[in-house]
Amino acid sequence: MTETSSAQTAAARTAVPADPPPVSAEQAAVEERLTRVVMASFTDCPNPRLTYLIQALVRHLHALIREVRLTESEWNAAIEFLTEVGHITDDRRQEFILLSDVLGASMQTINVNNEAYGDATEATVFGPFFVEDAPRIDNGGDIAGGAAGQPCWVEGTVRDTGGHPVPGARIEVWEADEDGFYDVQYSDERVSGRAHLFSDDNGAFRFWGLTPTPYPIPHDGPVGRLLVATGRSPMRASHLHFMVSAPGLRTLVTHIFVRGDELLSSDTVFGVKDSLVKDFVEQPAGAPTPDGRDLGARTWSRARFDIVLAPARA
Amino acid sequence: MTETSSAQTAAARTAVPADPPPVSAEQAAVEERLTRVVMASFTDCPNPRLTYLIQALVRHLHALIREVRLTESEWNAAIEFLTEVGHITDDRRQEFILLSDVLGASMQTINVNNEAYGDATEATVFGPFFVEDAPRIDNGGDIAGGAAGQPCWVEGTVRDTGGHPVPGARIEVWEADEDGFYDVQYSDERVSGRAHLFSDDNGAFRFWGLTPTPYPIPHDGPVGRLLVATGRSPMRASHLHFMVSAPGLRTLVTHIFVRGDELLSSDTVFGVKDSLVKDFVEQPAGAPTPDGRDLGARTWSRARFDIVLAPARA
Ligand SMILES: [Fe+2]
Ligand SMILES: [Fe+2]
Repeated sequence: MTETSSAQTAAARTAVPADPPPVSAEQAAVEERLTRVVMASFTDCPNPRLTYLIQALVRHLHALIREVRLTESEWNAAIEFLTEVGHITDDRRQEFILLSDVLGASMQTINVNNEAYGDATEATVFGPFFVEDAPRIDNGGDIAGGAAGQPCWVEGTVRDTGGHPVPGARIEVWEADEDGFYDVQYSDERVSGRAHLFSDDNGAFRFWGLTPTPYPIPHDGPVGRLLVATGRSPMRASHLHFMVSAPGLRTLVTHIFVRGDELLSSDTVFGVKDSLVKDFVEQPAGAPTPDGRDLGARTWSRARFDIVLAPARA
Repeated sequence: MTETSSAQTAAARTAVPADPPPVSAEQAAVEERLTRVVMASFTDCPNPRLTYLIQALVRHLHALIREVRLTESEWNAAIEFLTEVGHITDDRRQEFILLSDVLGASMQTINVNNEAYGDATEATVFGPFFVEDAPRIDNGGDIAGGAAGQPCWVEGTVRDTGGHPVPGARIEVWEADEDGFYDVQYSDERVSGRAHLFSDDNGAFRFWGLTPTPYPIPHDGPVGRLLVATGRSPMRASHLHFMVSAPGLRTLVTHIFVRGDELLSSDTVFGVKDSLVKDFVEQPAGAPTPDGRDLGARTWSRARFDIVLAPARA
C-alpha cells in the first residue's frame, strides 16, 4: 500500500458520515453561518490548543444538532439530564465519568493516548473508584483491608519494552469486594480493597487481593436510567484495577479480567481487551499458599500478570 | 441547479471536515472498532429516536476525541469543568443552559426548529431567565413590578402568515432591570420585569416595560471562566424577551434588540438577527404618553414590534 492510498484510507475511515439535513439551501446557509460565527468568536483565545479544541467541539456539536434536527424538547431533556448528572456528583460519586464510560468516550480517550507500542501492556479505562493515598503494602502483603471475598494471589513482573526488569515501579491496585462495592461506596470511611506497592529489585511484585467478581456500575442515578431506557446492562466484567508508573516510562492504567466470565463480551464501559483476560486458577481449601499463609478451610485463587511499560512520550 | 447538484452541495456543506488522525492503520482500526461496538450496544433500545440520537452522539463524540487526539489531562479537565457546571446549577441558576448558549448550541437548536416560513418572525435563544407563572397584566399594563429603569412603551400586533390578526395570543415578556439583573438573580423572592398578557380582539398588544440595557451573562462561574480563558466577552446585546403562543400556530421564542447598540455584532450567545433589531425612540421628559400616564420629569422610549406566527408543525 502506498503512502497516499494509506492516507486516503485513513481519511475515509475517519470522516463522520453525516446525513445532509433535509433543508433548503437557504436554511442550510443560516445554520452554516452560525457555526462559522461561533467558531470565529474563539479566535482571540491566547491558547492555541484551547482554540483548536473548542472550535472542534463547536463544529461537532453543531453538526450533531443539525444532523439529527434536535427538537427543543430533546434539547431540554439533555439540559435536565446533565443537571441531574451534576447534582448526583460529589466527592465520592462521579456521574460524569460514568457517563463518559458508558458512551465509550473514556475508552476512546484511553485508545488515543495509549497507542500500541511493541509488546507494551494494553491500557483500559480508569473508572471512577481510584483514590489517592491508598495504603502502602510490602510485596506479598494484602490489599483487602477487611474487604470480603475469596483470597487471590497475584504475581508478576514489570519490564520495559526492551525486556529489562523495572525495579521500584509504583503499582496501585484497587478492586470491589465480593458484594460488588468499592470502599468509597460504603457510607463509612473505611479504606479497603486498595493499596500500593513497589516492584522489587528484579521488577517482580506479588500481593494478596480478592478474586474479582462482576458488579454493576452505580445505576441508581441518571446514567443508570439512561442504560435502562436504552436496553443496556449496567454490569461490568469482573476485573482488578492496576496503575503502574516508573520514571521514563509511560504510566499504564489497566485492568486484568477473568477468563471464562460471561460478561467479557458486554462490559458496560467497553473496557475488555483480549490481552488483559487472565487465568484465575481456583485452588482447593488446604492447598499450600505461595507465602505459607494459612487460609484454613477457605478456597483461594491465583493469577499471573506480567506487565510491559512503553517509553514515556517525548 | 439540478436536484442532484443541490443535494451534493448540501452534503458537502454538512460534512464535518475531520482531519485524519496521524495514526497507523492498525491504530485507526482499534479506534474505529470501539466506535462501532459502542454504537451497536444501543441497538436493543426500544425507542428508535433515542437509538438514533445516541448513536449520532457517540459517532460525533468519538470522532471529536480521535480528531483532536484528546489527552487524558484534557479529558480530566473536561470532567472537572462539567462537574463545576453541575454544582453551580440550582433552581435559580442554570449553568448548562449558559454553556449551551455560549457555544451557539442553543441558537443552532433554535435555527433547526424554526425554519424560515413566509414572513414569520424569526426566533432566537430562550435564555435561562424565563420563569413560569409570571403575573398577568392587562393590555397597557406595566411589567416592571418595581424594577428600575427607563420606562418603555411597547406596542404591536400578532398576525398569522396569512396576514390575519390573532386575538388572544399569550404574550410572555421578560427583561433585566437597568443594573442588568433579572429578578431571579436577586437574593430575595421579588417578581419583577416579567409578566404575561393577551393580544386583544384585533390582535394588538401594548404594555409598559423598561428600555433594554446590556448586561453580562452570569460570569462568576465555570462558563465565565471559559469566556475569560478564550478571550470572549460575557456581554449580551440589549434585548427584551418574548414568547408568543396561540392555538394552531408555532410558538415563537424571540427577543427584540435596540438599533444602535454597539454589542449587536458580538452578542455572547449569538442571538442577534437583523430582523429583530428595532428602533427604540427616545422621548423627552414631559412628552405625552400613549395612555396618558404621568411620568413626571422622566424620559421614556417607545418601540413597535409586529409579530407574525408560522403555522404549528403538522
Ligand atoms: Fe472497577
Ligand atoms: Fe436576557
